[in-house]
Amino acid sequence: MKKAVVLLSGGIDSATCCAIAKNEGFSVYALSFRYGQRHSYEITAAEKIAHHLSVIEHRVVGIDLRAFGGSSLTSDVAVPKNRKINKTEIPNTYVPARNTIFLSYALAWAEVIESRDVFIGVNAVDYSGYPDCRSDFIRAFEKMANLATKAGVEGEKTTIHTPLINLSKSEIIQKGISLGIDYSLTHSCYDPSPEGLACGFCDSCLIRKKGFEEAGIPDPTKYKINK
Amino acid sequence: MKKAVVLLSGGIDSATCCAIAKNEGFSVYALSFRYGQRHSYEITAAEKIAHHLSVIEHRVVGIDLRAFGGSSLTSDVAVPKNRKINKTEIPNTYVPARNTIFLSYALAWAEVIESRDVFIGVNAVDYSGYPDCRSDFIRAFEKMANLATKAGVEGEKTTIHTPLINLSKSEIIQKGISLGIDYSLTHSCYDPSPEGLACGFCDSCLIRKKGFEEAGIPDPTKYKINK
Repeated sequence: MKKAVVLLSGGIDSATCCAIAKNEGFSVYALSFRYGQRHSYEITAAEKIAHHLSVIEHRVVGIDLRAFGGSSLTSDVAVPKNRKINKTEIPNTYVPARNTIFLSYALAWAEVIESRDVFIGVNAVDYSGYPDCRSDFIRAFEKMANLATKAGVEGEKTTIHTPLINLSKSEIIQKGISLGIDYSLTHSCYDPSPEGLACGFCDSCLIRKKGFEEAGIPDPTKYKINK
Repeated sequence: MKKAVVLLSGGIDSATCCAIAKNEGFSVYALSFRYGQRHSYEITAAEKIAHHLSVIEHRVVGIDLRAFGGSSLTSDVAVPKNRKINKTEIPNTYVPARNTIFLSYALAWAEVIESRDVFIGVNAVDYSGYPDCRSDFIRAFEKMANLATKAGVEGEKTTIHTPLINLSKSEIIQKGISLGIDYSLTHSCYDPSPEGLACGFCDSCLIRKKGFEEAGIPDPTKYKINK
């Protein structure tokens, strides 16, 4: 079986991406990051999903993006709530160069385990307008990756797979349900309560809620009561 | 003054690159990594050079490339000695995706401090044949970087400067001497003694020694006696 490195954040998209890679016949090597995010519920969710989907190996690598700051997700700036989401304004939840850094680590691990396939659950439909979620970025990263590595120089092409890039959140959820994912294991909220309950009003909660509504599937998320 | 992020490893090339950035009028923000390398002499050297060149700020970020292994520099595999250096065979000192990861962090810091200039001292003349030291890779990274970031999307181009890429090691040394660098502060050896003395026989020592010889400049390196 061919090996694939799959970036697994613990949210709906990366869980679905992981299930798709597995369904396509890859041995899945899941990669998560402790990057100085405000809470650790993402990592707990990633661990649950990795177990749920029986991946071959799951690594959680510590990287300190708080060293630079520049985002409400890695500093003490407030996460915006009930924002009118649009694709032209990039919100303060944007973490500078985050996907570039994540994909670079995935590329490193892929080269070490002799995998030529990396999966990332970026999505350019129901998203917060982050530049590093767009197809142009991914294709440029892939081109760079094939010039960066020993494998690339030796003619072995690495592919960055983005199976969700053109799907809406509801389509992603429907796809995941068809592959047997238990979405109650996933975590999306940027600003959960100390007990890990979702706030219900950050971009990530708003997009998630709308996704379940449009898919006609009951939302398994535990929200805190917040009137 | 314009700000530049300069990758500073503690060797001849990055020290020279730092001095060039300063000489070109940039405020220098130097960035080094503790990446699980076998010894910490590189970091000590980077700190000395940062001080010597009076940079605005020097950050040392911890990243764990030992998590993946795949290189003699980040695992217990032996570093090759007295190798006949050629540009077609990539030695085991190659660290998968290292420059991609380093440049990704530089890009993140640059975006946070609103710098649009990153310097890296890669060199494609006297080098060990690493794929991520070549011009094609750097140009592909730059293109990707401008699609990855908020600044890039907003039309502010980031440039990856490689002032040493076409220079021989002796030309780099002559350039550095003309800019007042004290090369006794730098460290190149992949496999130093416990006291930090250079082995004299790894690729990095061989290239360094040849560089000083060809430049006609006394080599300030302290080698261990190793007959």
